[in-house]
Amino acid sequence: MAATVAGTYDPRVFQALTFHDAMPRLSDGTDSPRAYLERCLETIVAREPVVQAFVTLNQDEARQAADVSTARWQAGRPLSAIDGMPIGIKDLLETRDMPTEMGCEAYRGNFPKRDNAAVWALRQAGAVILGKTVTAELGGAHPGPTTNPFDPARTPGGSSSGSAAAVAAHMLPAAIGTQVGGSIIRPAAFCGNVALKPTQGGINRGERQATSQSTHGVHAGGIEDMWQVAIEIARRAGGDRGFPGLSGPPKPPAAVKPERLIVLETEGWSELDEASRLGFETYLESLQQAGVTLLRRSHHPLVEALEQAVGNGRAVCNAITGWENSWALRNLVEEHPDGVSERAKTVLANAEAMCSDDYHAALLKREAAQRCHAGLAGLAEAAISLACPGPAPHWPGDRPGQPLAPRPTGDFVFNAPSSMLFAPAVTLPLMSVGGLPVGVQLMGQPHEDARVTALARWLLGTTAPMLVD
Amino acid sequence: MAATVAGTYDPRVFQALTFHDAMPRLSDGTDSPRAYLERCLETIVAREPVVQAFVTLNQDEARQAADVSTARWQAGRPLSAIDGMPIGIKDLLETRDMPTEMGCEAYRGNFPKRDNAAVWALRQAGAVILGKTVTAELGGAHPGPTTNPFDPARTPGGSSSGSAAAVAAHMLPAAIGTQVGGSIIRPAAFCGNVALKPTQGGINRGERQATSQSTHGVHAGGIEDMWQVAIEIARRAGGDRGFPGLSGPPKPPAAVKPERLIVLETEGWSELDEASRLGFETYLESLQQAGVTLLRRSHHPLVEALEQAVGNGRAVCNAITGWENSWALRNLVEEHPDGVSERAKTVLANAEAMCSDDYHAALLKREAAQRCHAGLAGLAEAAISLACPGPAPHWPGDRPGQPLAPRPTGDFVFNAPSSMLFAPAVTLPLMSVGGLPVGVQLMGQPHEDARVTALARWLLGTTAPMLVD
Repeated sequence: MAATVAGTYDPRVFQALTFHDAMPRLSDGTDSPRAYLERCLETIVAREPVVQAFVTLNQDEARQAADVSTARWQAGRPLSAIDGMPIGIKDLLETRDMPTEMGCEAYRGNFPKRDNAAVWALRQAGAVILGKTVTAELGGAHPGPTTNPFDPARTPGGSSSGSAAAVAAHMLPAAIGTQVGGSIIRPAAFCGNVALKPTQGGINRGERQATSQSTHGVHAGGIEDMWQVAIEIARRAGGDRGFPGLSGPPKPPAAVKPERLIVLETEGWSELDEASRLGFETYLESLQQAGVTLLRRSHHPLVEALEQAVGNGRAVCNAITGWENSWALRNLVEEHPDGVSERAKTVLANAEAMCSDDYHAALLKREAAQRCHAGLAGLAEAAISLACPGPAPHWPGDRPGQPLAPRPTGDFVFNAPSSMLFAPAVTLPLMSVGGLPVGVQLMGQPHEDARVTALARWLLGTTAPMLVD
Repeated sequence: MAATVAGTYDPRVFQALTFHDAMPRLSDGTDSPRAYLERCLETIVAREPVVQAFVTLNQDEARQAADVSTARWQAGRPLSAIDGMPIGIKDLLETRDMPTEMGCEAYRGNFPKRDNAAVWALRQAGAVILGKTVTAELGGAHPGPTTNPFDPARTPGGSSSGSAAAVAAHMLPAAIGTQVGGSIIRPAAFCGNVALKPTQGGINRGERQATSQSTHGVHAGGIEDMWQVAIEIARRAGGDRGFPGLSGPPKPPAAVKPERLIVLETEGWSELDEASRLGFETYLESLQQAGVTLLRRSHHPLVEALEQAVGNGRAVCNAITGWENSWALRNLVEEHPDGVSERAKTVLANAEAMCSDDYHAALLKREAAQRCHAGLAGLAEAAISLACPGPAPHWPGDRPGQPLAPRPTGDFVFNAPSSMLFAPAVTLPLMSVGGLPVGVQLMGQPHEDARVTALARWLLGTTAPMLVD
């Protein structure tokens, strides 16, 4: 697989790598998990020098796992529909056979030799754990080396940078990411993937130290793989402590045409570039022409109420997340003063300027927004919005002596709403702006992950992607 | 402080060690935190060989902290009302200056060199972190070496065994414990302490890997210290991720006489020994004579509904906790096959026989019970019940070749309700059965920790403890 030419992404012709498409040949024996893996490894050899999606590859154990899976397919007894699927794990999650360094100097060499619950579940389902993918430091803003597969001068987004880029570069059909603010949906949107940020608590986070709005989720080349990976994990490892796991059909839900969708502009609308706004508005027009009723803030007071409730989403998410992370971060900085980035230290300083009442106030804003969102349940099947603020920005790297760019992996302004609402969100590669991917996002009510996926399948299968220069 | 004579506990005459009582002399300079600490250390020298409450003592750093605190008191500027208070930390919580071994062979020597958020907050308030107290293995059922200070042939209860015993033996005025099922309230009740198991999420658990119904809480000799320690932590470190912290007055709330109390028999009633039942019923009669109206299951359909909703509390708690802990436990067993007790392995086997729907069903039972409890909010100020099933049982230790006793630290049957209801619970040393402590428990609605404490102060200050042979 040759490198793509920068800035020529066209969602109408781009063929993502999927495992789902290989199933017939795996079943009839003309393909095998081992052969599939070798094709992924060839792509990695070709593209990894520029894309830099991986922290660690475990080719030996992956080949062994692929061989065992191949034997199961040959015997007609795969463990699941993802048996033999090569998959990448964001390097925030522990894996028994690879270090977990979290993109953080202080965790260099950290190797707990245990599997995160989701990783355990993937192995139980027969998936081939191929490598650890680059994460922005500790899931925050300080970027790793990964570049955008469609333009190496641009960020792939973050913090699930490597998971998004590996899938987009055809290195893997799927990879696990995590999101607190926008760390799954934004990089997937910048990289032309589909991705699911499930309902809060939908996938067991296991040992992963995380905040009250952190979720595991799935990056994939195709929506069938996206659903299949998520549900195979949830069936085996369930949800987070205190949450029911993701529920839904054992196979990808069939496409369902939405009757009505809420259009959410969100806090990001006023900051959006003209081309992206034009592209999204034109895409919305095509939905209306297809018979979908769209409800906007000007049409309905409940939509306006939700827009207002999430109108300061970035600040609410930052306050909650900063406070919740501050003890772990303080301990880390004290133990490794030089092992944590200046960006993370700034986040810590902001959090330590808060008091517990500030935190409580942010929680109450989040809860109020959730109540407001629940009030819209009968109004439409889902909400549609952009998944990212236009195409991935350029990222030339930090420059000595210059102030640090605050958001080198992009802005999570379009992702804060679903994160703070604990709502399932799916991004779909339905736009291209200036030859780069821009995602369109569907968000549902909590626990409606399957419904959102069904609606997303209809959008993917029926509507034409939108290109603007 | 000489050892007490086994089986002669009398709550009418027993004088618990408190920090609150020392405050006037700390203020006027006739006592000091350093002198207070030295008295604690003398008691530890005298009693620790039998009681065995501590895993680790850090006398050097404690003395340094006490000296710095002494200087603050002498300058008239203590950091808080617990500045200089010697305190013990259950060995499930990380401390930067002592190992954290969790009562588990697999964690022998584990020394992460960081402070749990609650420990950090205690240090910020000037408290003197004196040592790590024995926990049953991983907060579960497999006991450590600690004995009951009122009878060394009996368990102190668990899993916060060392915290409960150290306070009861006058080694410390307060200690931190944790509860998932009954691990704070039961040992406190067996040891004649007061203790607070706060509303779920009320105290920041920090890095502590814990379940959806785990809480940090406080063991103390006096109710003023109990409240003061809890609120000083919550003011600085807030609540758990996603939860508001414990809220209430900065000083212990004044005593409030209850008008009406719900009497909860719970699942434990039918298993209770006659003497304890008689003692509790007699104590309830004295409450009625004092003008408190009591509502029992036979009096009101909502009380009966709650009794039914918590009637299988042990099974619900065990299912939820077992499932949530199973990935961490599986990883631990795989890495350290000989480092985990047979009791824990049995818990793991039971959990691994569950599927995610079993877990979801247990969550729904818990939520239904919580709804039911909320419906009783207007009926009475709090609920009263026993805090433990009679006095602490004998514990002769495991015997080679014999089947393992399932609950060597006692039964959490009276503690499951407040745990699964996420409700604040306080145990009070208001009974003695056969010369051993038996606690009486008050439980309030979630977030009414201060109200429960105020009611508890009235019970402690006004009603006569009950002795039965």
